[in-house]
Amino acid sequence: MTRSLPWTDDGLLSPVRAGTPVEAATGDRAWLQAMLDAEAALARAQASLGTLPKEAAAAITRAADADRLDPRALALAARETANPVVGLVRAFTAVVAEEDERAAEYVHQGSTSQDVFDTGAMLVARRALGLVRADLARTAAALAGLAERHRETLAVARTLALHAVPTTFGLRAAGWRSLVLDAEARLARVHEGGLPVSLGGAAGTLAGYLEYAPAAAGGRPDPGRYTELLAEAYAAETGLAVPVLPWHALRTPVADLASALAFTAGALGKIAVDVQSLARTEVGEVAEPGGPGRGGSSAMPHKRNPVLATLVRGAALQVPALAAALTQCLVAEDERSAGVWHAEWQLLRECLRLSGGAARTAAELAEGLQVRPDRMRANLELTGSQIVSERVAARLAPVLGKARARALLTEAAHRAGVSGRPLAEVLAGMPELPPGAAGELPALCDPAGYTGAATALVDRALRS
Amino acid sequence: MTRSLPWTDDGLLSPVRAGTPVEAATGDRAWLQAMLDAEAALARAQASLGTLPKEAAAAITRAADADRLDPRALALAARETANPVVGLVRAFTAVVAEEDERAAEYVHQGSTSQDVFDTGAMLVARRALGLVRADLARTAAALAGLAERHRETLAVARTLALHAVPTTFGLRAAGWRSLVLDAEARLARVHEGGLPVSLGGAAGTLAGYLEYAPAAAGGRPDPGRYTELLAEAYAAETGLAVPVLPWHALRTPVADLASALAFTAGALGKIAVDVQSLARTEVGEVAEPGGPGRGGSSAMPHKRNPVLATLVRGAALQVPALAAALTQCLVAEDERSAGVWHAEWQLLRECLRLSGGAARTAAELAEGLQVRPDRMRANLELTGSQIVSERVAARLAPVLGKARARALLTEAAHRAGVSGRPLAEVLAGMPELPPGAAGELPALCDPAGYTGAATALVDRALRS
Amino acid sequence: MTRSLPWTDDGLLSPVRAGTPVEAATGDRAWLQAMLDAEAALARAQASLGTLPKEAAAAITRAADADRLDPRALALAARETANPVVGLVRAFTAVVAEEDERAAEYVHQGSTSQDVFDTGAMLVARRALGLVRADLARTAAALAGLAERHRETLAVARTLALHAVPTTFGLRAAGWRSLVLDAEARLARVHEGGLPVSLGGAAGTLAGYLEYAPAAAGGRPDPGRYTELLAEAYAAETGLAVPVLPWHALRTPVADLASALAFTAGALGKIAVDVQSLARTEVGEVAEPGGPGRGGSSAMPHKRNPVLATLVRGAALQVPALAAALTQCLVAEDERSAGVWHAEWQLLRECLRLSGGAARTAAELAEGLQVRPDRMRANLELTGSQIVSERVAARLAPVLGKARARALLTEAAHRAGVSGRPLAEVLAGMPELPPGAAGELPALCDPAGYTGAATALVDRALRS
Amino acid sequence: MTRSLPWTDDGLLSPVRAGTPVEAATGDRAWLQAMLDAEAALARAQASLGTLPKEAAAAITRAADADRLDPRALALAARETANPVVGLVRAFTAVVAEEDERAAEYVHQGSTSQDVFDTGAMLVARRALGLVRADLARTAAALAGLAERHRETLAVARTLALHAVPTTFGLRAAGWRSLVLDAEARLARVHEGGLPVSLGGAAGTLAGYLEYAPAAAGGRPDPGRYTELLAEAYAAETGLAVPVLPWHALRTPVADLASALAFTAGALGKIAVDVQSLARTEVGEVAEPGGPGRGGSSAMPHKRNPVLATLVRGAALQVPALAAALTQCLVAEDERSAGVWHAEWQLLRECLRLSGGAARTAAELAEGLQVRPDRMRANLELTGSQIVSERVAARLAPVLGKARARALLTEAAHRAGVSGRPLAEVLAGMPELPPGAAGELPALCDPAGYTGAATALVDRALRS
Repeated sequence: MTRSLPWTDDGLLSPVRAGTPVEAATGDRAWLQAMLDAEAALARAQASLGTLPKEAAAAITRAADADRLDPRALALAARETANPVVGLVRAFTAVVAEEDERAAEYVHQGSTSQDVFDTGAMLVARRALGLVRADLARTAAALAGLAERHRETLAVARTLALHAVPTTFGLRAAGWRSLVLDAEARLARVHEGGLPVSLGGAAGTLAGYLEYAPAAAGGRPDPGRYTELLAEAYAAETGLAVPVLPWHALRTPVADLASALAFTAGALGKIAVDVQSLARTEVGEVAEPGGPGRGGSSAMPHKRNPVLATLVRGAALQVPALAAALTQCLVAEDERSAGVWHAEWQLLRECLRLSGGAARTAAELAEGLQVRPDRMRANLELTGSQIVSERVAARLAPVLGKARARALLTEAAHRAGVSGRPLAEVLAGMPELPPGAAGELPALCDPAGYTGAATALVDRALRS
Repeated sequence: MTRSLPWTDDGLLSPVRAGTPVEAATGDRAWLQAMLDAEAALARAQASLGTLPKEAAAAITRAADADRLDPRALALAARETANPVVGLVRAFTAVVAEEDERAAEYVHQGSTSQDVFDTGAMLVARRALGLVRADLARTAAALAGLAERHRETLAVARTLALHAVPTTFGLRAAGWRSLVLDAEARLARVHEGGLPVSLGGAAGTLAGYLEYAPAAAGGRPDPGRYTELLAEAYAAETGLAVPVLPWHALRTPVADLASALAFTAGALGKIAVDVQSLARTEVGEVAEPGGPGRGGSSAMPHKRNPVLATLVRGAALQVPALAAALTQCLVAEDERSAGVWHAEWQLLRECLRLSGGAARTAAELAEGLQVRPDRMRANLELTGSQIVSERVAARLAPVLGKARARALLTEAAHRAGVSGRPLAEVLAGMPELPPGAAGELPALCDPAGYTGAATALVDRALRS
Repeated sequence: MTRSLPWTDDGLLSPVRAGTPVEAATGDRAWLQAMLDAEAALARAQASLGTLPKEAAAAITRAADADRLDPRALALAARETANPVVGLVRAFTAVVAEEDERAAEYVHQGSTSQDVFDTGAMLVARRALGLVRADLARTAAALAGLAERHRETLAVARTLALHAVPTTFGLRAAGWRSLVLDAEARLARVHEGGLPVSLGGAAGTLAGYLEYAPAAAGGRPDPGRYTELLAEAYAAETGLAVPVLPWHALRTPVADLASALAFTAGALGKIAVDVQSLARTEVGEVAEPGGPGRGGSSAMPHKRNPVLATLVRGAALQVPALAAALTQCLVAEDERSAGVWHAEWQLLRECLRLSGGAARTAAELAEGLQVRPDRMRANLELTGSQIVSERVAARLAPVLGKARARALLTEAAHRAGVSGRPLAEVLAGMPELPPGAAGELPALCDPAGYTGAATALVDRALRS
Repeated sequence: MTRSLPWTDDGLLSPVRAGTPVEAATGDRAWLQAMLDAEAALARAQASLGTLPKEAAAAITRAADADRLDPRALALAARETANPVVGLVRAFTAVVAEEDERAAEYVHQGSTSQDVFDTGAMLVARRALGLVRADLARTAAALAGLAERHRETLAVARTLALHAVPTTFGLRAAGWRSLVLDAEARLARVHEGGLPVSLGGAAGTLAGYLEYAPAAAGGRPDPGRYTELLAEAYAAETGLAVPVLPWHALRTPVADLASALAFTAGALGKIAVDVQSLARTEVGEVAEPGGPGRGGSSAMPHKRNPVLATLVRGAALQVPALAAALTQCLVAEDERSAGVWHAEWQLLRECLRLSGGAARTAAELAEGLQVRPDRMRANLELTGSQIVSERVAARLAPVLGKARARALLTEAAHRAGVSGRPLAEVLAGMPELPPGAAGELPALCDPAGYTGAATALVDRALRS
């Protein structure tokens, strides 16, 4: 049994991410490790340019192990300096000194807290995005399967809460998939191009790093050349991108992450509310994948709650708000802000964690979703063909004029609703119906004949 | 050294609350304990009405110890049911059975997950609000001291980033205090009146609880009477309020908490940005309390960063966004929502935690703030009396007319700005100045004579 | 036909408020009038203290007519000064001069833009809140009627999208009403206590006002006494409250408004999503009030869309986000902020307008809601008594033990779901059923017998 | 003089956009025109496929003039149907009938409200984005000029509100520009690729459109082929893109707009707060462009408020919150949502309008910004070389060890701060200073020697 410490969270209030890989990838230990990875990569990059001994960089790299530091002590110390890096550098220097006393002199050389923190954050984000994207890919694949299998499965399309016209379940699944692909594309854009190292020094001029740069031919090193090489070496060591400028107070990478993650959560939330709408007892067109204990209620033995959709929707209600707060952090004053940067950290982690949890949960949902074509068909019949009133109006329009055709159908639909009789029957008895039209009605009123381009749209979407 | 688990947070990304009492009061263990307290209180309340044996309630109460459960296991199990209570009831029943096998039959009797979770949440909120309010009281007391000590300390009032007119530092401190008192009043309203038990049963009818109610005189228990007594007993056992109706999907208590906490964070954020504005190197009118290592930079030895204000401001940028998401959770469908309720949990905890951390930090800031009247006075002189241009215009208005007086001062201020000469000197040389006015100028231009009602306002505010 | 100007809005994108009284009460003309009312009230207050001639105050009051100013010209001029008051004072002074040349000297005497704007905003808010509250009262009354009429109307309670247990429609309506009353109470708190005049002068010291104060016995006026009298007179003239301190940068009144309005919109949004959930074609338990053209679709003649609920929900999705931005404006630097104050204006107007439109729309919805007890009853039967599984489990628990009883019901509910047979029938055939229990099943499985305290709760709520 | 109507806004509360081109491009009249453009384009597209007579399409196109409709009447009618298109189609049909009675039969053929509204919204967005991007281009060009002119202008870099190290003003301007370019790139991505026509028919199957499709060779038209051609023709007529699927409830285009606009407002807000920070009276390093009346205060003649930055910042505080609400609208249930779609309209318009106003205002600010190198230099001297403490520590580290060097500088900086003596002087008197180091101090302490790679970074950024 894991004994929790009074200050920690075990995910009790956030089951959408409890136990998912993204949770561990974004926890404090992972974050700490990422910052140590940043310190080590910086040392290796500097070593590659002759700024510090290669042995020192090797010792720093060996010592860069989160298990040798105490994250709680660092968290507490962070209250003194408003960030965890000052304490981290002190503690890490001691760890390096155990490894190699001389190397300790080279830890964090010329650097600043924000360089280490932000590079670490980008490393965390990169790992987390990889996990999120993998789960989106699983989700999209499962939805593609549903779309294909059900490309002709007749179903009710609902608008403004009411039956509208017939559609196919495949088209709905194809729509879900297209949103997931949109999310994937937005994450990919950030993941593959937009996660840079942070390398600015105390205030964006890299002056501190230059103090240690080896002399060039003419004496002092060339600031532009050296810093460019350093950024490239740092990027190479971390696998991150080279930024155009130091971004301590130019927060494009964080805003881009926020935006892509909010989109992802929102896209998955759309699927979740649709599943819930379709799983309602009266509708019953889909059910969540089962499993022992899955969906149980503490009170009602008969219930099989749509828990996966519930978890996903819960995340979708949170991430856009958190992401908005992150976007507002673009408005960071001066060369480094006093508070705006600090507001980002927990928000960013939560966005990654919740989106990642939602993606994992959505994959389980999509892969196991139970589809009930019989219930879809039964629901289609519920309104006695009113669902094709648009079509009948369109067919009568050339004869009666658009306005009269529409008025006729409105009246007929009203009578059908009140009496419970099928629309075709009501219409057949109305004197306004043009002669001869009655015979066509049965065919016109077959929902199967009025799915428009649904099947073709599925095919088109699956090719995209 | 505390070894952190991969999935937990140690506060590394949220130093504003690391180590503060509210952190421990809102952690997963505290939350778990609060839910167990709710189960035990429910059992005692039922026992008091004869619904279950008093011995069972006693055994349940004895067993209600969070250390006997595994929060991580509960978090993982919560993925199956979308909430942690189903698993908690199962695990807790086993713990009770160890204590008293028969008592285990009475755990969670007639109840439902949301009753236990929400009652637990209110218990957590009550404890956390107590801590937050105590820190606000400390902060207000410290600010009252500043206001009193500096009720006549001359200072620059700044509007739209520029020097406006003279004021006193005491008036500024009194304003900060009044915001803190406003926050306190809003929290008190919720704390003292608005935190109810949750008692609705499966869907708000309390039917489950009634199934176990003892027969009344005429046979079946009276539903209204029994449930009223049960709610009162439950409230008495927990110290919470009796709600008018079950509130599974009527989320007033949570929305009220969100609103009061967002206000609190915002109010403290106002103080933080003012402290930062006044602490700027060029301004230098206040400094944060020192201490070994406090405010240090990883790069720049000379810096003493305003870290407390930075932490507070960081929290103030987060809480209103989280609170907005909570307010949106009012829109919860049906008798219990599938996802909206679930979105609340982590948001509520973060609002409590961040506001509580900010309040503790603000108390440290207010109690230790260093005030520099000499710098205030020096800054007042910076613009060579332009800071009293409003006054001079007002004095000339009866003679010259409002428009001409204003135009004259605008021109004089412009010339003073360009030339760097004092406003009084510039004015004295302008032919438009009415005869005799020049003699009055030195007195008119003394900032000490133009603080309006600042001192009286301080006194008035401190009496409120 | 109204010809719209290129820059104006006619409500085309915001039908929830188009044509409602709150729309006109918050439009630019109303806002302009409120600012003129503030100027006039200030002049009268000053006149009452002998600071300016009573005839001047009378002329200023006569001239304070929004139709004599050009709001578009003021809007354009506001770009030069970042607020509309500088231009307003200039233009209004000219209007007053037409009325009485000498009075023009006394316009805006000793004042500042923010005093006029904020006092005007509070006047607008007061008028708007009156309208919103009246519509909430209508809504609450209509819901009370529904609750009373349907206190025993059997209905399905739904949790996590599924049938849970029986309830009554009256209890649902009583819950809606209680949220509306909560909203009303929160608005009343602000409306009746929290809307103060703004009176601070250039930067919160009231120094400008004091320049014009008449001499007191000992020569100079007493700053504290004079400003207190001025504030009281100003409050009396406007009907607003006296603030403890000038609140240019202490934004409690605005944050309180934001919070109460967000609550209101959220509370109404809850009703809206419930109506939509109940109006779904498959559910059909309620319908919106009809009317010629109401609810029509441009495509489908048979549809009667739940348009009122749709409009209300649309507002509920907007207001909390706008209100959060307002709450963030608590973090306003210095004595008057450069941008934070300016961000409030349009946000506040939108919050008032959308909440007011939603309240008016909700009143129409509540007053005309069509309730269909037959459909509620039919839906109750849909699951063949599974809806009472909680009850049956409770009854068997004393015999079988809680765990076995629950397992038995879970299994029976599963078989009933798969086979479509009624739960009672399935149970009756299970050997685990205790002897003699079968006879009780029909009564146990009657949903009418399992509404718990629903009726009593309705009565209790209606008394509150 | 423009007489405003009671319900309209003239921009009085939103000067950031009053009179800017984007205001007129997003007003109700523009929106109405865009919807008519959508109707006309649809008719022409259908005509091109033989679905309706070319003469009818021509008549519809001629009639599509917003001045022939009454937007206020449409707004009021929209309350009956929850959207303005039902009424628009009715009114527009009458206008077309005046033009050509037979053509009226073909208005809105096979279509649905959301297709027209959303296509109109995309047309509005396209026009608005063009304006925003042009203003961003102006802003970026002006900032490039500043960066180039001031690439070597020495200035203070500030972090956490305090002086940190030297930098150049050019680097700051280059950073601003890079954010503007980032915003431009994000808008361009949406503008050039992401604004699709809406073409789904009643519920996304395009069935209504197909009812009017001309028979193909084999009798019925091929649904996939016809709808593909129709979408292409519609896109060609409007200049918008062809979507993969109908997007009534797949809101990627709106979420993408929201995200890019929030980024834009945030990026401009960063520049605004920096300008305000630098314009503070004590700092005085920049001033806003002047002009008659620009920046005036209603109270204080001497003030020249930074009004442009104030307006921009005010917008930056609003847009991210509005955009977050739009992002949340991704969670739209069913084939068309009952309320979520409706919430988007006003939010989207405000995002466009505020961002556009901010971009226009930022362009004015950037083009006219007054830069004061003398004040920058004077501020650099304020701390008596403490600003280079990082450098001195770095130089002493090889001799003293990193820790001792840092401790020495911390102590020296403390003494310099307390005594007001220059850091170099204090250091020179400290016995811990290594022999010989004192001679180097004057050169080491020259801020001009410690700008790191600032100049090179400017050059690199301007090449990007």
